Amino acid sequence: MTLVLSNDEIAELLTVPECLARLEETYRDLGERKAANRPRSDVYLPADGATERYVFKTMDGVVPRYEVAALRLNSDVIRWQPGAAGVRKDKQPLAPGGKWVGLVLLFSTRTGEPLAIMPDGVIQRLRVGATNAIAARYLAPEARTYALLGAGWQAGGQALAMAAALPSLRELRVYSPTRANRERFAAEMTDRLGLEVRPVDDPRIAVRRADLVGMATNSVSSVVDLEWVEPHAHLTCVKDSELGPGILERCALVVVHTRIWQPTNYLVGAGEEPVYGHDPLQALGGSLGDLQPARPASAIDLSTLPTLGELVTGQVPTPPAGSMTCFVNVMGLGTQFAALGFLAYERARERGVGRELPTDWLLESVHP
Amino acid sequence: MTLVLSNDEIAELLTVPECLARLEETYRDLGERKAANRPRSDVYLPADGATERYVFKTMDGVVPRYEVAALRLNSDVIRWQPGAAGVRKDKQPLAPGGKWVGLVLLFSTRTGEPLAIMPDGVIQRLRVGATNAIAARYLAPEARTYALLGAGWQAGGQALAMAAALPSLRELRVYSPTRANRERFAAEMTDRLGLEVRPVDDPRIAVRRADLVGMATNSVSSVVDLEWVEPHAHLTCVKDSELGPGILERCALVVVHTRIWQPTNYLVGAGEEPVYGHDPLQALGGSLGDLQPARPASAIDLSTLPTLGELVTGQVPTPPAGSMTCFVNVMGLGTQFAALGFLAYERARERGVGRELPTDWLLESVHP
Repeated sequence: MTLVLSNDEIAELLTVPECLARLEETYRDLGERKAANRPRSDVYLPADGATERYVFKTMDGVVPRYEVAALRLNSDVIRWQPGAAGVRKDKQPLAPGGKWVGLVLLFSTRTGEPLAIMPDGVIQRLRVGATNAIAARYLAPEARTYALLGAGWQAGGQALAMAAALPSLRELRVYSPTRANRERFAAEMTDRLGLEVRPVDDPRIAVRRADLVGMATNSVSSVVDLEWVEPHAHLTCVKDSELGPGILERCALVVVHTRIWQPTNYLVGAGEEPVYGHDPLQALGGSLGDLQPARPASAIDLSTLPTLGELVTGQVPTPPAGSMTCFVNVMGLGTQFAALGFLAYERARERGVGRELPTDWLLESVHP
Repeated sequence: MTLVLSNDEIAELLTVPECLARLEETYRDLGERKAANRPRSDVYLPADGATERYVFKTMDGVVPRYEVAALRLNSDVIRWQPGAAGVRKDKQPLAPGGKWVGLVLLFSTRTGEPLAIMPDGVIQRLRVGATNAIAARYLAPEARTYALLGAGWQAGGQALAMAAALPSLRELRVYSPTRANRERFAAEMTDRLGLEVRPVDDPRIAVRRADLVGMATNSVSSVVDLEWVEPHAHLTCVKDSELGPGILERCALVVVHTRIWQPTNYLVGAGEEPVYGHDPLQALGGSLGDLQPARPASAIDLSTLPTLGELVTGQVPTPPAGSMTCFVNVMGLGTQFAALGFLAYERARERGVGRELPTDWLLESVHP
């Protein structure tokens, strides 16, 4: 039987410490070339209206240690619009019931058979948070104060993973442009983390004197200025566009999640060849109009930097004590979904959780 | 509800003429840049034994005309071994019940929601056959005699599609190294095509005096010699390695299915960057040993040639009458699965065929 899991079930099955352990093991495999990814690609439809379009996003990963191959896909209608902190990119919940569509499919590398189908949301949050926390464990193991910009779903994942990975943390300051959001976040996280979480109304106040600066926003323009940042701080972001100009240049060490830092985009309206670029919409004539996102003026080529897999396997020289460092988690990897999806699958099998789909429905007896 | 279809159902739902019409429409869209593909990628595991390994293959395609995005995946354990006509590459049926794993997933580009999940086998055969037949309709519209090398599942798809696309056909000669296979094929196809189908025991006899030469074998070395081929023949193959040396150079026109003629390979054991090459196993140190496939000594760069989409939209100059031409169908496209998968989905909905999976199992209410 092929197992179908829900986000609620996955949230019950996975714990942050277990995710940290599984992912660290997987990054070790990546560093030792014992696992592989097919990086993310996006296929873009023409804009339906000025700022909305369909995007089909896929990535693959194989982790031989777990004998599992994973595919992660997102089938999204995306809208770009001005927000409080610049241009925001929002997925529109247009599927029945006002829902989104993101899936992880797992396959056995021994037999080829499908093992499980599950939504990607909970794993997405856990894997992004856990990945940034693994990097912080190596680059900011003594951090006491943590500034977090963003108070959404992803920001929560960052806070939970950092608190689990860094026992040294004593204080978390959260900034978000909307007061209600940051106060709700602070109240919820104070309970969950056993840590003082303080909402602040100015990102400067959050970032100054912080040992660790995290960004988890929907903004596509920068949210942290270099001059706010302590010289010894570790910065950690989920989009390099969140970093203000000069930050990457100022760091003694920048580690990337993967050197393949941008998706390969295929556009209806373009030819067979991929279009690269942070904003593929621009490549088709700037249909965003006045909503063009600001890009940090960085001379750093992310494709030349060490990866997290290399960091956790000791292939990256340690920077001098007290240096500014940064982990740039710009692109997800299929191996993250393989590792955490398989963990959810194992735990679900142990506990009898999930719905069963006859595997035979997904097999075939003709030779393709 | 998300529809789950079987190969048997799809075989009942799809007719060759309808597939030809849908695919030709889709190639017109591709030629006019009104559809897009994310080309095939393969992730390879290390060999388990000398000649067997797991491969995870995916490709995506979006056809706005049908408001559909498709993903096609194969989760295969592949064995390379010596066969009667050179090295053969065989997918091992190791999934429960001795089955294979190839799937097509369809999504709505209006709402993002999953529409259908189906095995890829029947569509795979139909789309390869129909694609070669569409090219033949443009490049060999008057063909009377058809030589077919190969008598397997794919060869059957070629014969069925050619017979439907070319009313001029009068005779089909089939060669396969195994007598029982070619005789079974000839008997079955004589019934199904209303055409004289003659088994021959020598590929030369099949190819000489043929207006149309088709190849659909498992061989990874060449199966047709240039000197057997009529000067006015149209050749059509599913792997360029089937073509003997000099054939492509001799043609007045070679059309490719897509200029992105090779998959992007990611290998466990290599780094993050893709490895290109016809035989990615060689890139990891030639684990095939003595089974290295022969490559045709061609100076033709397939990535510079006109595509089928360009051919059907009149963007390719017609070669002089009586010239040798070739259609090289080396790489599948996600748009083929989008077009034919959606046709199967529409017909199944009209006729109440298939099993229902609650779409809500595949949706999520958290923002990924």
